[in-house]
Amino acid sequence: MPDARQWQAACDPHLLRALRRFLKTLPPGAPVGVALSAGVDSAMLALHTAVAAADAGRAVHCLHVHHGLQPAADEWLDQAQRLAGLLGAVCHDRRVRVTLAGQGLEAAARAARYPALAEMAAAVPLAHLLLAHHQDDQAETVLLRLLRGAGPAGLGAMAATTRVDSLICHRPWLDQPRRKILQAAQRFAALSAWQPAQDPSNLDSRYARGALRGALAPVLDAHWPAWRQALARHARQARELDTWMRAAAQADWQRLDPRDDDDSFSLAAWRGLPAERQAPVLRFWLFSRGLRMPTEARLQAWLTQLRGVHALGHDRRVQLRHEGHWIVVRKGRVGLARGTPDAHFGAAPAPAAGFVKTH
Amino acid sequence: MPDARQWQAACDPHLLRALRRFLKTLPPGAPVGVALSAGVDSAMLALHTAVAAADAGRAVHCLHVHHGLQPAADEWLDQAQRLAGLLGAVCHDRRVRVTLAGQGLEAAARAARYPALAEMAAAVPLAHLLLAHHQDDQAETVLLRLLRGAGPAGLGAMAATTRVDSLICHRPWLDQPRRKILQAAQRFAALSAWQPAQDPSNLDSRYARGALRGALAPVLDAHWPAWRQALARHARQARELDTWMRAAAQADWQRLDPRDDDDSFSLAAWRGLPAERQAPVLRFWLFSRGLRMPTEARLQAWLTQLRGVHALGHDRRVQLRHEGHWIVVRKGRVGLARGTPDAHFGAAPAPAAGFVKTH
Repeated sequence: MPDARQWQAACDPHLLRALRRFLKTLPPGAPVGVALSAGVDSAMLALHTAVAAADAGRAVHCLHVHHGLQPAADEWLDQAQRLAGLLGAVCHDRRVRVTLAGQGLEAAARAARYPALAEMAAAVPLAHLLLAHHQDDQAETVLLRLLRGAGPAGLGAMAATTRVDSLICHRPWLDQPRRKILQAAQRFAALSAWQPAQDPSNLDSRYARGALRGALAPVLDAHWPAWRQALARHARQARELDTWMRAAAQADWQRLDPRDDDDSFSLAAWRGLPAERQAPVLRFWLFSRGLRMPTEARLQAWLTQLRGVHALGHDRRVQLRHEGHWIVVRKGRVGLARGTPDAHFGAAPAPAAGFVKTH
Repeated sequence: MPDARQWQAACDPHLLRALRRFLKTLPPGAPVGVALSAGVDSAMLALHTAVAAADAGRAVHCLHVHHGLQPAADEWLDQAQRLAGLLGAVCHDRRVRVTLAGQGLEAAARAARYPALAEMAAAVPLAHLLLAHHQDDQAETVLLRLLRGAGPAGLGAMAATTRVDSLICHRPWLDQPRRKILQAAQRFAALSAWQPAQDPSNLDSRYARGALRGALAPVLDAHWPAWRQALARHARQARELDTWMRAAAQADWQRLDPRDDDDSFSLAAWRGLPAERQAPVLRFWLFSRGLRMPTEARLQAWLTQLRGVHALGHDRRVQLRHEGHWIVVRKGRVGLARGTPDAHFGAAPAPAAGFVKTH
């Protein structure tokens, strides 16, 4: 069995340090997975992970998803297996069928990829999987979301840790520039003669990100050379802010005398909040019940009505429609009625993934 | 005295409606000022304001700042006076000297412009001044700030209302696209033969915004045609969020048993906050004392220390330096000591302009 440490000279010290630091946060001896497309980013993640894991006595498993989309897909599998062999890592693969159901090809490929990775990880079994997203990916995501009209929380972009079923996915290189990855790949190719494939996970880029990479990035590089660091840092701050906002809105919600039995809250307590905290707690309430965020105009109309109604009354005038539900006031309590304004209070709870969402 | 309503046919209905709606929020009969450079944006703001104000029986005053920077500055003054004459508005002007003290020309011109406007307004006297910033300006500001590394609150960009001394400045067109302004200008030129000057307030654009307008905007227009609306909306949301965050952090601060005499707070109460609310309240405390926000790394180091120290003790190990101050723990209270760690608690309060600021 080859020892990955023979390739240490190809590694970038910053990339390696980021992985060593990350691996220390995992349970001792736990094996670790790497999502390996055989493209340059994931190949270098596999290399650096294998070197860092060898020092720590951890096993590395490479998980390859065979998309079958490209004529060259079989070659990519072969490339992934050869790399794993060089690194002394086990290589697992699974073939997926990408079905286009109203979504774009990129979304369809992603939708097929994650469940396949989760299945492979469960079979090993592996609790932790590493993904190769780097600072350049993160910066692109921030910019694309901003241009598509995402709100402040959307600019949090990719999280360092996410979960797919019981699998925990980590992105240890979100703060690392792609430049270092490409340099390491050149050194590795010189030492090992292994060359990365055109990355099939970069399918994405040819569609949604194409305009950004082809047309926008060159202009940004020329005039704002540090744009990637700036945007990746922005993502971290936006994510922190979202965590905090959610906690603060939840704390305000607890002050509204919420009732578990009918999921209603006290109108008088809500009106006792400072004005600028009344809207966020309403947003939190709807969000945590799985409903979409109202438009700004609709939210303003609700605020006006809820501030105007008699605080202890049963006010039939307040029947605010939203997403198949009604916000209704009865005996000084505000609740959600599903379907008709006269229905019993209470909506099906179904929390979603980001606090401040927009239409 | 000419009646501005003779030019109503040149007006854009959306631009006019935005101004009518805005003027209703002012005290009845109060005169209103317009910052008029004689460039196209401010000229059209003066036109629409004059038409809307004539209906409401309000006087309009045009305030022109003569920068003396450009050879053509005298012509601009002449253009501004002629436009005011056509609109039946009074025109005031003031000459400023722009001094370059380490800052760029754009910053220097802006620094000279606002005090001159405030002085002219005070002399009339006027309490309210309108500025012509539009959706395109707002979108550019959002993007430039993101590229320069501003945090989430920085993307709030320009506020609809700001204050310069006792003058309240309003931007009623922040949601209006420049396209409508240019179309109105063409109609007005056809009716009146008045042509706008090359806007001296757009001095800015030739420097900081030049790369954006010349190189970036064409690419964005081609691939993301709605980018300006998306970014202007983002600014509104970011601004709301900032207002709310500040209120929420202030509410947490009040829970820390703050003492007015030495501006200290209870370490035990701080540790009783949920973990994700400990950093924001520290940021709020420093911010409201006029200090800059710490870097993320520094803030994390403080959190670790403040969480580790004996809650009721006087811990000499905790001496956290920041901006010429020390954060010190004494007898279970956390305070700011200025100059040396042994100084008395208390910093000079000097609140600044945005909550989440970054280095």
